[in-house]
Amino acid sequence: MKLTILGSSSALPTSERFPSAHVLNAHERLFLIDCGEGTQMQLRKKRIRFGKINHVFISHLHGDHVFGLYGFLSTLNLMGRKAPLSLYAPEMYGSILRSHLGDFDINLGYEIDFFPLYGNDPVLVLDDKYITVTAIPLIHRVPSFGFLFREKQKDRNIIKDRIIEFGIPVERIPAIKKGEDYLRDDGTIIRNEDLTLPPDEQLSYAYCSDTRFCPRLSTFVKDVTMLYHEATFDKDKTELAAATFHSTTLDAAKVAEKAGAKTLLIGHFSSRYRKIEPLVDEARTIFPRTFPAIDGKSYEITNNTIDY
Amino acid sequence: MKLTILGSSSALPTSERFPSAHVLNAHERLFLIDCGEGTQMQLRKKRIRFGKINHVFISHLHGDHVFGLYGFLSTLNLMGRKAPLSLYAPEMYGSILRSHLGDFDINLGYEIDFFPLYGNDPVLVLDDKYITVTAIPLIHRVPSFGFLFREKQKDRNIIKDRIIEFGIPVERIPAIKKGEDYLRDDGTIIRNEDLTLPPDEQLSYAYCSDTRFCPRLSTFVKDVTMLYHEATFDKDKTELAAATFHSTTLDAAKVAEKAGAKTLLIGHFSSRYRKIEPLVDEARTIFPRTFPAIDGKSYEITNNTIDY
Repeated sequence: MKLTILGSSSALPTSERFPSAHVLNAHERLFLIDCGEGTQMQLRKKRIRFGKINHVFISHLHGDHVFGLYGFLSTLNLMGRKAPLSLYAPEMYGSILRSHLGDFDINLGYEIDFFPLYGNDPVLVLDDKYITVTAIPLIHRVPSFGFLFREKQKDRNIIKDRIIEFGIPVERIPAIKKGEDYLRDDGTIIRNEDLTLPPDEQLSYAYCSDTRFCPRLSTFVKDVTMLYHEATFDKDKTELAAATFHSTTLDAAKVAEKAGAKTLLIGHFSSRYRKIEPLVDEARTIFPRTFPAIDGKSYEITNNTIDY
Repeated sequence: MKLTILGSSSALPTSERFPSAHVLNAHERLFLIDCGEGTQMQLRKKRIRFGKINHVFISHLHGDHVFGLYGFLSTLNLMGRKAPLSLYAPEMYGSILRSHLGDFDINLGYEIDFFPLYGNDPVLVLDDKYITVTAIPLIHRVPSFGFLFREKQKDRNIIKDRIIEFGIPVERIPAIKKGEDYLRDDGTIIRNEDLTLPPDEQLSYAYCSDTRFCPRLSTFVKDVTMLYHEATFDKDKTELAAATFHSTTLDAAKVAEKAGAKTLLIGHFSSRYRKIEPLVDEARTIFPRTFPAIDGKSYEITNNTIDY
């Protein structure tokens, strides 16, 4: 899994930070998470192929998370897209989008499969061969949802030399990868652990923005590999954060710590902060493995403790 | 007058070209012309002060000319703007904007004075101390308008030494600048031409995009100092240009030539053109003083023949 940050600003973009948008690459399938203004230009700059994006997740209906969507959808259309696009967004967005496309006389040549998000509990919204995606309720001024992308249990890793050694036919390999023993023609059994190594660890990524400090969140994203949590403000702006339903650096770090996350990425920075290092330093007082989201940068999601 | 290009692409932005947006500085007042996606980020990069923009002109309702407006208006609001903003756009945009701001629960703290554009004749839409702005009907798939910014007749230039020599009191200067002679106390007259030099030439800028070749246009922008005319396609794509109601390089050059423009700026390039020089060369076969619109670049509008 690899994450690319297209925008890390909050409502006011700066000369270095675009509004929110992330691209998650999971098994060479791309997931666009939020679509702030300029997302399509950032995708161009990073040479990310638009056609590989089949799922778009919108956290909430504030402009800095969605005003790039009209342009992105139009561009897909101009590029001749035919494949349906899945769009997950707060329920009221279905009619808003329909009426806005109508106002601009945009007739999309592809279907949008719209998945309305609502409610106060986590909901499984996507379950495919490799991953599941769960929408997680956050706490903001308008309905807001985080998204947890979790790899499924992986197959055990075949030890090739043993397979050759025991002359195991290729059609038996899938079952052995799933953990089955191998029964030889002479009736003897070769135990699975003599043929395989444990599967690679399941990786996961959670996107949580916008939200004020949400105590339940750490249970929803328990043991996540990489947690992205908004940190709009520093700890001196705790009251302002509460009043605007945003989080501070320490709020984000507390969630990461309680969840047992491997790594915390903070972003959605207020435009008042020119330098991001002090925000990272604050979060590290609680959660040492904190790193900043930086526009244009890619982050490998791994259980190894690499520094970004 | 100084023009800054924020975006020079057509519907599909590229890694180097944002969608349409221009900023015209006329006597230190800023006019935003079209507002494609990403306009506010380009303004940031160029360090152009948002608060100095009091007039926004939208040529037509295609996304690549207007999808940056929601973000721009929201940002003005977050910055605490109180002064009214004048918005000139095709008439149907009034209700579209109102409903979209409502959908996103955006309550602007400033008034938008909306000037609906319609009809098939040029209309004077702004007439202030220094300039006039005329909306000009273009020919596109939806109602589309160009904008002609023209400086008013300027005052004559005072010859300071003569004013001192004749001991002319300061309160008489405005009338002399307007061309009046000076009547001395002894009844003798000093002729205006002995006190002043001719006024600076009136400068003008016309923004014409999107449009197919429009024969009337050259009379509407007669003698314009700088003409910006879309040139979405090269001359080999004449049929495609006609079918999509866009112009070729040669169309743009013909309008500039017939209008007697001093300089032609071409832009709104199709994303198929990686290199712009061949398009400029084509236009120059008809109109030698053709230059390309380049994102982030500023152009002094002058009767002198500087090369951009």
